[in-house]
Amino acid sequence: MPELRAYALSLSLDGYLAGPDQGPDAPLGVGGERLHAWVTATGAWRDRHGLPEPGAADPVDERFAARGGGDEVGATIMGRNMFGPVRGPWRDASWRGWWGEEGPFGHPVLVLTHHAREDLVLGDGTRFRFVTGGPRAALDLAREAAGDRHVRVGGGAATVRQYLAAGLLDELHLAVVPVLLGAGERLFADDLGAAASGYEVVEHAPSSTVTHMRLRRRAQP
Amino acid sequence: MPELRAYALSLSLDGYLAGPDQGPDAPLGVGGERLHAWVTATGAWRDRHGLPEPGAADPVDERFAARGGGDEVGATIMGRNMFGPVRGPWRDASWRGWWGEEGPFGHPVLVLTHHAREDLVLGDGTRFRFVTGGPRAALDLAREAAGDRHVRVGGGAATVRQYLAAGLLDELHLAVVPVLLGAGERLFADDLGAAASGYEVVEHAPSSTVTHMRLRRRAQP
Ligand SMILES: NC(=O)c1ccc[n+]([C@@H]2O[C@H](COP(=O)([O-])OP(=O)(O)OC[C@H]3O[C@@H](n4cnc5c(N)ncnc54)[C@H](OP(=O)(O)O)[C@@H]3O)[C@@H](O)[C@H]2O)c1
Ligand SMILES: NC(=O)c1ccc[n+]([C@@H]2O[C@H](COP(=O)([O-])OP(=O)(O)OC[C@H]3O[C@@H](n4cnc5c(N)ncnc54)[C@H](OP(=O)(O)O)[C@@H]3O)[C@@H](O)[C@H]2O)c1
Repeated sequence: MPELRAYALSLSLDGYLAGPDQGPDAPLGVGGERLHAWVTATGAWRDRHGLPEPGAADPVDERFAARGGGDEVGATIMGRNMFGPVRGPWRDASWRGWWGEEGPFGHPVLVLTHHAREDLVLGDGTRFRFVTGGPRAALDLAREAAGDRHVRVGGGAATVRQYLAAGLLDELHLAVVPVLLGAGERLFADDLGAAASGYEVVEHAPSSTVTHMRLRRRAQP
Repeated sequence: MPELRAYALSLSLDGYLAGPDQGPDAPLGVGGERLHAWVTATGAWRDRHGLPEPGAADPVDERFAARGGGDEVGATIMGRNMFGPVRGPWRDASWRGWWGEEGPFGHPVLVLTHHAREDLVLGDGTRFRFVTGGPRAALDLAREAAGDRHVRVGGGAATVRQYLAAGLLDELHLAVVPVLLGAGERLFADDLGAAASGYEVVEHAPSSTVTHMRLRRRAQP
């Protein structure tokens, strides 16, 4: 059965997926780039992003970075803040994402936003579609596009939180990173309550850099 | 130099030191007992609490559980909620702590509270002193009692948070536990901001059960 999954979300020890003050020079917020060091060191990640091979990364990190790759995922959902630093109504169509014309997707990407915008097609054929109908509408479109493949929730915090709170996420892979950001976008907020307890950690795999935790939704009683 | 240290605080993946609804039957809040499974399995902990030796615990867990033991610590500070489940003014002196008459302390214990109470002396000589003057007053009393030994902040969340926010804590050892509690007492709250970034992770030591992170206050610039 195709699932809704979040892969390789990097969580700071104090609970943030991004630092404060996101902007053109700080896609992950101030200090947030430290969250991604483990993944950008992997061959799986660099390969997907068309970068030269790095030195040897931790094999546990490699294994987790490879998940969600290849043909496993047929569509991605992301929040408008992950898509870019532009806020409010789109003045023009000049912002085309962080990823360049040859992005890592190769499948449709649904962007949650309150501000309608025409579809955007990258040079590699990746189509971004801007969805104003909320997370369930985005999920319906993503499932239709993905067919028998999984749908990925790419991030950021506000987006993952909504799919968690609604109990729609089947799997959530977190890498707990030993840094404190002090402020930013929190993943597990107090309002999650019972929804958070609908999940359990099914795999706990420390590497030399981070601790990977794979969570699955508990079977409904 | 004697320091102010918190040892072996067990933090859930979603950021809590205790679950919700603390009470006589749930000292760590509902579901919170899962936080302590790693430490109660260690010889160091069972020895300190006068319990029979367990089977073999993870050696990394043993090493961390042993810290703060012996004569290293000369006084402990804790919050009134960690001391017990009684809330509001003390009706009588019948609550004598969770630890029985032969507790794990063997040194003065300063309890932060808004409600004055006479000193309480356990059968093993441990003296609890109830401090209404706030965290700095408790720290002064603890330092005086500890002499050239360290002062331990035992918990809970509200108490550790105040010493962190004031930049008074020198060291903080956390064990990140792969469970979600969904609600409870949060350690790193959004109001910590700059104070949290005054700390850095100096040791990242995963065991088979938890991930130990030892944080130290950064040198002042
Ligand atoms: N640590 C990691 O692994 C990781 C992974 C991915 C991303 N990130 C980072 O996370 C940050 C972004 O996270 P974030 O929490 O700030 O934001 P986000 O989830 O990416 O986007 C939030 C925005 O999406 C739109 N949106 C969300 N829910 C909606 C709904 N129900 N209906 C309509 N629009 C909706 C809103 O934008 P508008 O109202 O403005 O349209 C909202 O402000 C970035 O820094 C990114 O780099 C980190
Ligand atoms: N996970 C772990 O490793 C760990 C470790 C230790 C404890 N715990 C758990 O943590 C929980 C307790 O944490 P908590 O956050 O609820 O509370 P806490 O920090 O133990 O105690 C908070 C209480 O202490 C008093 N207090 C705190 N600051 C004060 C101040 N500045 N001035 C005067 N009084 C002050 C107040 O009590 P009053 O106003 O009522 O007097 C306040 O409600 C318990 O479940 C305990 O078992 C967990």
